[in-house]
Parts: sequence; structure tokens; C-alpha cells
Amino acid sequence: MQPRDLFAFPPRPITRRVIRAALEEDFPGGIDLASFGLFDARAAAQGIFQAKAEGVLAGGPLIERVYEELDGDLEVELLVDDGAPLMPRQVFAKARGPVRALLGAERTALNLLMRLSGIATSTRAYVRAIEGTGCRVTDTRKTTPGLRALEKYAVRAGGGTNHRMSLSDGALVKDNHLAACGDPARALAAMKARLPHTVKLEVEVTGLEQARMAADAGADILLLDNMTPEAMAVVARELAGKVVLEASGGITLDSIAAVARCGVQVISVGALTHSVKALDMSFELVVP
Amino acid sequence: MQPRDLFAFPPRPITRRVIRAALEEDFPGGIDLASFGLFDARAAAQGIFQAKAEGVLAGGPLIERVYEELDGDLEVELLVDDGAPLMPRQVFAKARGPVRALLGAERTALNLLMRLSGIATSTRAYVRAIEGTGCRVTDTRKTTPGLRALEKYAVRAGGGTNHRMSLSDGALVKDNHLAACGDPARALAAMKARLPHTVKLEVEVTGLEQARMAADAGADILLLDNMTPEAMAVVARELAGKVVLEASGGITLDSIAAVARCGVQVISVGALTHSVKALDMSFELVVP
Amino acid sequence: MQPRDLFAFPPRPITRRVIRAALEEDFPGGIDLASFGLFDARAAAQGIFQAKAEGVLAGGPLIERVYEELDGDLEVELLVDDGAPLMPRQVFAKARGPVRALLGAERTALNLLMRLSGIATSTRAYVRAIEGTGCRVTDTRKTTPGLRALEKYAVRAGGGTNHRMSLSDGALVKDNHLAACGDPARALAAMKARLPHTVKLEVEVTGLEQARMAADAGADILLLDNMTPEAMAVVARELAGKVVLEASGGITLDSIAAVARCGVQVISVGALTHSVKALDMSFELVVP
Amino acid sequence: MQPRDLFAFPPRPITRRVIRAALEEDFPGGIDLASFGLFDARAAAQGIFQAKAEGVLAGGPLIERVYEELDGDLEVELLVDDGAPLMPRQVFAKARGPVRALLGAERTALNLLMRLSGIATSTRAYVRAIEGTGCRVTDTRKTTPGLRALEKYAVRAGGGTNHRMSLSDGALVKDNHLAACGDPARALAAMKARLPHTVKLEVEVTGLEQARMAADAGADILLLDNMTPEAMAVVARELAGKVVLEASGGITLDSIAAVARCGVQVISVGALTHSVKALDMSFELVVP
Amino acid sequence: MQPRDLFAFPPRPITRRVIRAALEEDFPGGIDLASFGLFDARAAAQGIFQAKAEGVLAGGPLIERVYEELDGDLEVELLVDDGAPLMPRQVFAKARGPVRALLGAERTALNLLMRLSGIATSTRAYVRAIEGTGCRVTDTRKTTPGLRALEKYAVRAGGGTNHRMSLSDGALVKDNHLAACGDPARALAAMKARLPHTVKLEVEVTGLEQARMAADAGADILLLDNMTPEAMAVVARELAGKVVLEASGGITLDSIAAVARCGVQVISVGALTHSVKALDMSFELVVP
Amino acid sequence: MQPRDLFAFPPRPITRRVIRAALEEDFPGGIDLASFGLFDARAAAQGIFQAKAEGVLAGGPLIERVYEELDGDLEVELLVDDGAPLMPRQVFAKARGPVRALLGAERTALNLLMRLSGIATSTRAYVRAIEGTGCRVTDTRKTTPGLRALEKYAVRAGGGTNHRMSLSDGALVKDNHLAACGDPARALAAMKARLPHTVKLEVEVTGLEQARMAADAGADILLLDNMTPEAMAVVARELAGKVVLEASGGITLDSIAAVARCGVQVISVGALTHSVKALDMSFELVVP
Repeated sequence: MQPRDLFAFPPRPITRRVIRAALEEDFPGGIDLASFGLFDARAAAQGIFQAKAEGVLAGGPLIERVYEELDGDLEVELLVDDGAPLMPRQVFAKARGPVRALLGAERTALNLLMRLSGIATSTRAYVRAIEGTGCRVTDTRKTTPGLRALEKYAVRAGGGTNHRMSLSDGALVKDNHLAACGDPARALAAMKARLPHTVKLEVEVTGLEQARMAADAGADILLLDNMTPEAMAVVARELAGKVVLEASGGITLDSIAAVARCGVQVISVGALTHSVKALDMSFELVVP
Repeated sequence: MQPRDLFAFPPRPITRRVIRAALEEDFPGGIDLASFGLFDARAAAQGIFQAKAEGVLAGGPLIERVYEELDGDLEVELLVDDGAPLMPRQVFAKARGPVRALLGAERTALNLLMRLSGIATSTRAYVRAIEGTGCRVTDTRKTTPGLRALEKYAVRAGGGTNHRMSLSDGALVKDNHLAACGDPARALAAMKARLPHTVKLEVEVTGLEQARMAADAGADILLLDNMTPEAMAVVARELAGKVVLEASGGITLDSIAAVARCGVQVISVGALTHSVKALDMSFELVVP
Repeated sequence: MQPRDLFAFPPRPITRRVIRAALEEDFPGGIDLASFGLFDARAAAQGIFQAKAEGVLAGGPLIERVYEELDGDLEVELLVDDGAPLMPRQVFAKARGPVRALLGAERTALNLLMRLSGIATSTRAYVRAIEGTGCRVTDTRKTTPGLRALEKYAVRAGGGTNHRMSLSDGALVKDNHLAACGDPARALAAMKARLPHTVKLEVEVTGLEQARMAADAGADILLLDNMTPEAMAVVARELAGKVVLEASGGITLDSIAAVARCGVQVISVGALTHSVKALDMSFELVVP
Repeated sequence: MQPRDLFAFPPRPITRRVIRAALEEDFPGGIDLASFGLFDARAAAQGIFQAKAEGVLAGGPLIERVYEELDGDLEVELLVDDGAPLMPRQVFAKARGPVRALLGAERTALNLLMRLSGIATSTRAYVRAIEGTGCRVTDTRKTTPGLRALEKYAVRAGGGTNHRMSLSDGALVKDNHLAACGDPARALAAMKARLPHTVKLEVEVTGLEQARMAADAGADILLLDNMTPEAMAVVARELAGKVVLEASGGITLDSIAAVARCGVQVISVGALTHSVKALDMSFELVVP
Repeated sequence: MQPRDLFAFPPRPITRRVIRAALEEDFPGGIDLASFGLFDARAAAQGIFQAKAEGVLAGGPLIERVYEELDGDLEVELLVDDGAPLMPRQVFAKARGPVRALLGAERTALNLLMRLSGIATSTRAYVRAIEGTGCRVTDTRKTTPGLRALEKYAVRAGGGTNHRMSLSDGALVKDNHLAACGDPARALAAMKARLPHTVKLEVEVTGLEQARMAADAGADILLLDNMTPEAMAVVARELAGKVVLEASGGITLDSIAAVARCGVQVISVGALTHSVKALDMSFELVVP
Repeated sequence: MQPRDLFAFPPRPITRRVIRAALEEDFPGGIDLASFGLFDARAAAQGIFQAKAEGVLAGGPLIERVYEELDGDLEVELLVDDGAPLMPRQVFAKARGPVRALLGAERTALNLLMRLSGIATSTRAYVRAIEGTGCRVTDTRKTTPGLRALEKYAVRAGGGTNHRMSLSDGALVKDNHLAACGDPARALAAMKARLPHTVKLEVEVTGLEQARMAADAGADILLLDNMTPEAMAVVARELAGKVVLEASGGITLDSIAAVARCGVQVISVGALTHSVKALDMSFELVVP
């Protein structure tokens, strides 16, 4: 079964670098010493990828890409679509080919999938916690260097949506910017004149007055930074409909429902990508 | 103050790739839209890197490397050595230079430091939990693709030691290998004949009998896989001194002390690198 | 004089690849045969970069970057800011160092600057042609592979603004999309639900009815594709203020003023980057 | 139909870098937002590549290479050989596969082909203008950084021949060299002694006397720099047959015939590659 | 016949860089001038790889990898396994495909195979010279930059074993280290505490007393540096069985047998890789 | 003393890749285990590079480049110019800086310099053997993959000259070509029409008749392949002055003088680069 790519899996030119970096890290001398010591080069086998905990799969298509980078003679069969739930002991992929290659790529594949599935699993939990509120969960730029496109994909696979991808495709005016440039109204006017007309302007605020000023100055989105649900509700009552309201700052699984109820449209959660709990998985050889 | 490099910080040829990947992720269009919209190109400022939680610093030298990749005109002053404790609100580094460059590199630097310091912080906790037992805490190959050298460095900065770096520099015979090659004695004999004389042979075992067989066959290290402290103690009573004993498999901060008391010399903890809780940090501009 | 960077010149991680590719193209055997045949390795000289035609400078900071890649002993002095006008025979930069290095980097520097200045020069002409109308000139994604960030910079230096940088930071629904997905209203609804809240939605239309439908369905921007000024004026009378109107398709220096008068806010011109007339420049050694 | 490669299309190791750079520029976040918002991952379609103006095709084989980099499931059929004429609305290639991939690679393929075909088209015009004179049209090193091999290929496809590829494979002594090294006779003697015996020596001259001196000193080729046809004719009468004569400097479609008639064997035209007018092309989805 | 990979041939991610570097060196302008001048693009042929001297084959699988990098339409048939003997005029591989590609990749393939087979041939001679002694021949880190994994593979193919692969997977304390750190006992204690438990500690010694000290301090391996066979025999009588003894320094084919007889287990020979005599080979087209 | 660059040392963009590949090979885990175990990070020292055999230095400038890649705090002083003779025990360079960096880069620097100096040394011997004959010694394309530019530089440093650098800058018609394309006269005519006018045409011949035919057909250079000195003398008597004559094929130090006397202008020697005997060198720490 060819998996369905519902969440726009990053194309090869984007995933190639991280896969190669990982394989180079694991084969710096060009050899897997244990396999060399133990296996006949022609020995073939089958292996299964298995979840060891409950969660959401993300990164399945990487298995085939990792194996094809290492050895073209391997065949991978993906049994579960990204975004689907996994149960403990559920087999989600099979691979068949030379034993040495199966074992040589195992760790690279698992390191990627455990991380991405961990992100999807935790995103799903956040999304579930606010289901029905009409509010969305987004990521941030607090991603692992070199893995941003994949981690933002995992957020989508978990049911979240993405925030801006980079400094080149979104304009978020933070406290640091305001500290340096002063007047937000003038700042927004300057930005509107200079930035692409395709970009929305977002301004970080910490209270109602700042929020009003930014909205009046033409901000498209307000990032409500570390505000209490009560304070956010005040802002929302006044500005919802005029600007998009995004809550941010230390929001957890425990607190997110309260935040969603106060009228914001977007909740961004840095921990989705900066503090990932890997989803436990294993690879087992099935020797005939 | 030039920082002391007590833990052998990876040299530039090894860190360059990940730094560049991160900056390319953040500047794909070659521009930081917000800074372009807001700042005069000649505006200069100072910024401070600050801990927002208690922990152990790791990765400090990366700040300078990130900044020098982005813009040669920035100056970085590192106030705290890697491996040293950080307190909330403690300033550990300062940077001075063009505002645009200060803000452009902020996220890349923080994404790296928060992750590495998170690893060092959690390693330190594991090491503290078994202090005085003579037992060591090591990492695994469950590292983030592209970041292995840095993450293994962070483990050293936290007081741990490293396990093998790659498939090319250690020979660990796991259940998958034994499943595929059968007899461990013959396996070890084959490996001794073929592998570099500089490499120790490690065999994964799950009980006393297997442990005895592997030790008799000439294993240098036994990996006691997911065994209870009691079962490990039995193995240790018989084999300690003959082989190095390494406990592995689901060991947590809560359980590690009990494991250390049962006579093993090494405890490896995959979660040190596969499930990292970032240490919270911030960067603040100080505008004169 | 250190040049002012008014237009957010792309940082080194973004320009490094193209500079290195150019130098590798020119030195594949590691040698400049003519210089090797003619010059003493220690011979030093000064050289000047000179415009040979009237235009707008863009790419000045690249001279220093090209030279520092080739040979660290060269000094470059930039006399003119990017975005400033150049007159024939005007010297805009000086370099001093080993003759071999001066000549070895000459062509790489000129190939880049002549192209970027050509873009800035032609952008400036388009911008001038609609001065006072409140309308802006933007680029497209029809850029030279490998040079996008630099070419979009040159458009800024010429007084234009940028359109989206890539497929990852803007959503432009074109005829091809509509052909494949059918109903634009449902298309826009799907996009609003799935895409980052930071992204504006742009729809290509070819007439008033389509324009109305797209605006009603929530488009932020309409791309008026190959419409006559009269047809665009009709759309503008009805939709200006509700959505941003962007004219596109075969607009030339001769026709742009008429387009600007019909009420659109943005005019995008593919020829700015896909059909560049290089600005003529030369490099001359000044031997003492 | 597998296209015939009459002009030695550069092999994959040479075209890979620029294709990847282009795709990375267009997918920095790993996603085509519009396609993600609109299409089912399994939707398939066919697309056609079509000329929108009259010209000469160059770069056809790149379509397949671009698509195979992005997604291995696409099939490309090339209907026209490079070097063949294209008429407006002529379909020269077809592609079939997932809609997302078809649209994702469209711009990269077109940006390359429009540029290369523009070069071939203009080269063909220059070649036609001097047909029957026995004179050849060549390119220069004024190529786009990163695209030299492809642009020189496009010149061949248009009927031109190549000049030297780089500083490592030809020795052209220009005014800058002579300014720095003085006596051309001594210069040529030094070069003959030091340079590979496989390399011809070319000297730039601006008048008859210099031409004589260079020829007497053993130059194989003279570059007649910015001379009038009359002045070149004088040189040709004296030196044709002894040395190869190459006219260079500001030669246009209008002036080239006169230049060819004055007895030179080679005419080099920088504008072929430094000021390219893209050949207009489009890609259209054909939805069944 | 698919060749057997008895010696763990380095996987593609490890050999790709050197193959690409070689092809880029040979095709910097994207063209093989001679083939372009002579051959029809559709001309196909067969070619044979032939030994021109007696030796041991190493690197056979590279032929296919080189050809697939250059042109996917070539077929390679490998007739001889790596590690097998070659006789003069023996055909060891065949290739079939476009003439241009066959000739374009010829030199890259031969440069690699002649070097690796030269290493295997000379390793075999060293191994033969001490056959039956139980002693092994190993390489060193004196390898060609960029080719280490392949050269160490060739040593295995010749019957040798590998020493450490890099500075990251072995700890060899040399005279330079001892000069800098003083007391070897304290040095070894420090290393045992800090280094991975998977690594053996090796100390370079030049006489019996140093050897004793290092063994007592816990060294696993002693490198006997430039000692006479007699002196090594003295050390061996005392320390064999306690530590692994490795002879090193200027050992030649003439002297190795005497060294092996004095009781060491390992003999390392830098010349295996630093002074390689290429095994002569040729590629001949077989035109039907 | 800044060294003189008499032989056109390849610029940084050309040497960077091989230096980085070598350092990555030696630091795959980001750590030099022995140095980490033994040295204080702040320990500094001086080291000397010393010849251990007589020869010719080549590659001196690489020392500084290797060290600056690894650690910017090292200072290198080069005492001997490339191309100058070295005597056993002669110190040719000094380095000063952190002990860890000094030792970490030692092997990379020596592996490069021992190889390049070996090439220069052997080239010098060949050149000396035919001194006064007016004949030159050249290299071939039988170079180490990834090192061509450096190895061709070393040939220059030894007093040889270079043959073509690549397939893109010379046209050598070999037996394989003639076998495939038949008639050499037609072949040469085709090449003259298609190839750059800057390239000389060289044809491989094995006897007088072929030589005549090739010369008549317009070859610029004849490669006399594996002919006896007597047979070459016959060719030379007839064709010297009309074409350049190059002897090639199995020429050794013993046979070269006889070859030079038979009237050829160029002798190419593949062994200069394909079978290099490294010049022995060492690096010693000088601890104060």
C-alpha cells in the first residue's frame, strides 16, 4: 500500500540533507562493525517497525527514503498513514532486504520517526483538549536546527496548523523590536510600506492598551504574550473580528482549554517542538 | 572571558553544517522581514542571553559560532562555562552589534542552547542520583539526526560519559543480531577475528545464562537489557570484574539509584537525548 | 566607508553558495592560467570597479564577499551605496591586493553585480513610471535558479517590493489550481482551514465575475491576469478597499502607467528578473 | 521518444546542484501551501509544456531531471529535441503524475528552460546573421554564476561554439594583464614555458601594431577588442592564416554581419549570456 | 552476477562525495570535448575493464556507482569479487551503454580501482609474508584525505584488519601526548575516567620500562614504536597475554616476518595507504 | 615569513572541500578522544613540522588552511617555500596554539603534505633526468579523486608542467575513440568544427603511419603511445616542428632520458600521481 500523503510530506530535496547527515553520523568509517563481524553479505531478512506506546504516527515515508539512501535493494511497505493512531505493539511498516542494510538504517529511521511521532502525538493531545472551540493549535520557530520542515509537518499530522516558517515569510513584531524601534504605530506604517503585500503583520502585546494601539495601527494579528485567560478575554471582547488573536507563552495541556474559551482564534505552543517526548518504537528482525 | 573548554567542544568543521542549516531555515528568502521593516541598517545594540529556569549550561561556544556565520561584526562575551549551573534570570552571555544581526541569529542560537542545556541538565540529575556509587551514566545512539556530536558533548557537560559514537566504532551485538546469526560464541569468535583490535565487544543479554555464555565467549561488555535490579545483581555477583556490566532499558530518574546499587558499572539512558526537555532561556535587547 | 545596508542585503549563509559555485566554475583546475603565466605571486596592485552605463547599483557588498572567499589578503572599499544612481565612468568600488587574486575574482564579481544592477536599474524605471500613483511594483518567482534571494534584493534596491519568496510562504491560486480543484469558494474555505493564519490568500482571476466570487469567498488578494486596463478599472471600482488588487501579465514600461491609473495597488512584473539586461561595468587594474 | 543529445547535455553531477538550489528556494518550508490547501494527495493529472513565442528549445532534458529530484513518480515525455525551432503554442513536453508534484516543479523547470531557450534563440539569430561567412559565434565567461555549463550548452544548441570554460583552461592576456606585466613578447614567452602544451595563447589587442607584436611573439589567437570593422579588416589582411582572429566588444545583431565580412574567424558576444531575454513558455494542467 | 560483499563495502552515503568530486573534476564545463566532437549521442557500445598486472581486486562495486552517477542508462556487470586475485589481461567487469558515458566515467572508475586494488595487492603481500604466525596486519590513519573509508575497506579486501578509524573512536597516547601531559600512569587514569567504556586504551612505548609502566597503569594495547625485533621480543616475553602488542614504524615486506616472529599480535603498516603503487588496469571499448 | 606562491597554489574555494573531508573523517564524533582524556583545554604549546627524508616541499600553505579550519587560534609559520629542497630533519614549519588543536590537525596536514611533497619529489627527479634536453615532463588525469588541483600543483612545484585538467579543457583522441568513430581525418574535421577555438587537438598514435595521417588531418599534438625510442625518433624526424610530440606510456626514471633524446617535446608520466611514494615527515610538540 502506497501511503496517502494528507499533510504534504516534504519532498526529497528537503529531507535529503538530514537523512544523509544521520547516515554519515552512523557510518563515519563506512562500516557497521557488528554486521561486518557477524553477517554474510548475502544474508537477507525481513524486519518490522512496531509502536511500543500509544500515539500518532508521523514520518512514515521517511523509512523508505532512509533505506533507499543506504541501499537500493531494500523494499519497504508502509502499513499505516501518517496522522493515524498507533497502539502498543502495532506493526506500522515492514522492510525486506539484506540484513546488513536493515540493521544499518534502523537507528536513523527510528530516531526520526520516534521524534516526529512524538510531536504528532503531543499535538493531537493539545488539539483534542480544545476540540469544538473553533480555536487552532500552532507551532513556533522553536524547532530543532535542520529539522524544521519535518517538525512542522509532524504538527500538521497531529492536527495542528503551522505558524510562519521562517523570518522571511512572516513579520512578528516582538518586545525586542518595539524596545528598539519605539512607536508601534510608526513601526507598522513602515512595515506596511516595505513588506510584501502577501504578508500579514503580527504584533506582540501584553495588555489591552497595547492591543488597541496595535489594532488601530493596522496589525492583522495580535500575539497575546503570557497574558491570563481573563486578560485575554477582555482583549477578545473588544478586538475579536477586527484582528486575529493568538495566545502564546507557557500554555500547557492543563491550561489550554481555559485559554481557548477566552476568545482567541489561535494558540501557539513552543513545547510542541522544543521539548519532544519521543514515541517509543522498535525494529525487530523476523528471521525465517 | 574566553570560556574554558573542559568537555572537548566539537570543532568548527563538525558544527558548521548544523548552524548553516538552521540559518538557512530561518532566512530562506535572504531577509528577516520584521527587521527590514523596522530597523535602520546601522542601528546597533546589546543583547543578553538569560536563563529562565534552573539548569546546567551546554553549548555556550555556539553563540559565537552562530553569530560569526551570520555577521562578522558581532561581538559575543560568554560569562559562564559549559557544565556550570544556571539560575533563573542568570545572564550567561552578552552580544553586541547591529540590531538586525542580533535578532536574526537569536532563534538559531536559542534553539541550539536550550536543547543542549536541557540534555546537560537532565544528565546532571541522573549523575547526581547515583553519586558515590562509582557507576557512570552514558548516552546512546538515540540522538537527533545531524546533532549527534553536539548532543554527546552535552552529555559530557552534564557529567555523563559517552557510549559508542557510531556503528563504525563499537560493536554491540543485540537481539536482532543474535536472532540472525545464531550461536553467540561463534559470533564473538568471528568478530574477534575480523574487527579492529582497538574495539571492545559488547553483547546484549537478558538473563544470567546468556550473560555467562557471552562472558565465556570473550565479550568485553555485557548490556543487561531491561532486567530487574534483582536479576542484574545476580549477574553482577557472578561476572563483575570479569566483564564490564552495562544496564539499559527504560531506566528513569526514579529507578536509577536502585540499578546503580546492583553492581553494574555503566547505566545507559536513551531518554537523555531522545526525549529532551529544553532548558528555558531568553534573549533580550538592551537598548541604550 | 562601510556601506549602508538599506535594503536588507542577504546574509553570508545565503550568498555563500552562489559565490562558491561561481569561483569553482572559474577555477576548476585550481589555477588561473594567464595569471600563473604572467605574474609574480607577490605582485600587488589596485583595481577599480567602474560603471560603463547609467543605472542603479545593486550588489556592492558582494565584491567584498567574493574577494574574501578567494583570498583573505584583499581589501575592498565600496564608494557607493546600493540603490544609488551610477553614471557612466563612475568608480563605485576599489580593491587592493595581490594581482592574481584581483584578476581571479574580477569576472565572478562583475557577473553578479552587472546582473543585480541590471535588475535594480530596470525596477527603478518601472517605479518611476508610476510615481505618485500609490501603486507598487513587485517581482515574481521567475528568478534565476540559485539567485532568488539576491534578485529579490535587487528589486528592493531598485525601489520595488517583493511578492512571495517561495511556495512555502504564500498561497496563490492560479488557473492551473482552479482547473484541478474546481469550485473557488470551496477551495478558499479549505485553504483558510489548513494554511497558517499568517498567510494571505491570493486568487488569480480573469474577469469581474470571477473576481467577485473570489472576493466573496474570502480572498485577500486578487491577481488580475492579463486583463485590459479598462477591465481592471471595472473590477477596481467594485472591489478596491475590500481586497488588494494586483495586476499581472505582460506589463511593460510602456503600458505600466495606464495600468497604475486603473485602481490596482500592486503591479507584478516577471521581466524584472526573467529577462535582465545587465548593467555594463568594468574592472581596471591601476598599476602604480 | 528519448531525445537525442546532439549538443552534449551536461551530465547529472553538473546539473544537480542548480536543480536542488532551485527546489530548495521554492520549498524552504518543505511545503507548497496552495497545493496543500487545495489538492488531495492522490490526485493525478497531466500537464503540457508549451512555447508562447517563437524560438529555439534548449534544456529539454532538464524537465525530467527536475521532476525526478522532486518526486520519482512523475513521467516526462519530451517531444522536441534541443536545438529545434519552437512555434507559439507548440507543445514540446508532457508530464504526468501527482498534481502536487506537477505544480511544485513547474516554476523551477520553466525558469531554467525559458532562460536556456532564450540563449539558444538569440544565439541562433546571431549565427543566422552571418551564415555562409565561415565565421563562428562564441560565448564568453559572462555567464550567470552557477549556470555556466548549462548556458554554454544553450549556446551550442543555438548553433554557436564555446570559448574557454574557465580560467583554468584558456589563457587570454587582456589589457589588465599587459598593464601589469608590461612587454607582451616577454609575457608570451613566459606563458609558453609555464602553461600546458594543450592550451592556445590568446592576446587582446586594440590595433594593428599590437596585433603584429602579439602574432610575432607567438600568440595563437588575437582578440580584437572594440575595433571598427575597418580596423579589423586591416589586421585580417595582414595576419589571417597566421593567427586566429576573434572580434569582441559590443557586437550586436545589427553590426555582426559587417564584422564577419572583415575577415575574422570568431566573433564572441557577451550579451548571449549576460543579457538574456527569456523565451516565453507556459505549463498547463490538462485535467481529464 | 551480483558481487558478494564480503568485506563490508562502504554504503552510498559514504562513497557519494568522492565519486561526485571526481566527476566534477573531470567535467567542470559539463562536457567531454573529445566525445562531443566525435560521437553521435545515440552511439552505444560495450567496454571491458581489464587488469594489466597481477594483483588483488578492490573497489569493483564502485564501477556501478560511478556510472550511475554519470548516466543511469549504463549497465555494469562485475565478473570478479573484491578480494579475489587478478591476472594480467583478466577482464573483471563489463559495461554497456552510450559511448559518451562509457568514456566519460572511465578515468574516474580507473583512478579509484587502480588505487584501491593497489592497496589490496600490497596488503595481501604483507599478510602472506606472515601467514601462519597468528599475527595480523593493520592499517593506520595515514590515508588519503576523503578516501579513508574506501582505503580501509581495501585493506580488509587484501586480508588485513583495520586500526582505529578516526580520533573519535580510539585513544592512542603517543610521544607527543606524553611529552605534553607527563606521567603516563596519571594519564591513563584520567582517560579511563573520561572516555567511553567501549574504547581500548593504547599507549606508544619505545622500550621495556615504558612498556611495563603502561601495562601496569592499565593500557589495553601497547604500540611498540620503531623497536628492533629483539627489543620487541623482550617485551613480548614479559607482557604478552596481559596486553595486546602492536609493532609499528618503518616495517617493510622484507622485515615483517622477523617482526611477526617476536611475539606481537598486530603489525601496523602506514605504507599500505600512504605510498600506494596503483595496480595497472585499462578500459577498452568493444565496438561491434 | 609569508611564503612565496610561485606555482599558483589553488585558492581556498578549491582546497576547502578536501580539508573539510579530512577533518570530518578524523572527528566524526566531534572529539579527539586521547586529547580529551589527557589535556587541559587551555594548555598551549608549539609544534614543528620536520622532514624525515630528502625531497621537495609541496603543500606548505595547506598547513595554515587546515589549522584555520579546525581552530582559528593557531598560528602557523612557514619556513620553506614550496618547490624548495628539504633535507632530513629540516624543520619547514612551526605552529603554536592549543595542544588539542595542534594534535587534532596534525594527521590531516601530514597526510596532505607527505603526498604532495612525494609528488613534487618524484617530479623533480624526472625533470632532472632530462635536464638540458628542452623536453618537459607533464602529468596526466590519473590523479586521486578529489585531489586533482592539488596534485597538479605539486607537479608544477616539482618542475613539471600540466597536461589538460579535465575532459572539458582538452581533446585527446585515444584508441578507444578511434575504435568507435573510425576515420581519424573525418574525426578531426568534426572536432575542429565543433570544439572551442581555444583548444588544441591531440591524437594518440602508435606508429609512423598513424602519426602522419593525424598530422595531415590537422592534429596539433600527437601522443606517441607506448612506442620505442627508436620508433619515436622516426616520427620526430618527420614531424617535429609541424606538430607537438608527446611521449607517453610506462616511462620510468630509468628510461626517460632515452625518450627525451629522441626528439619529443613533452613526456607525460602517469606514475607521478597514480603511484606516489609519500615523503616522510613528522610533527613534534615542543613543550616549554
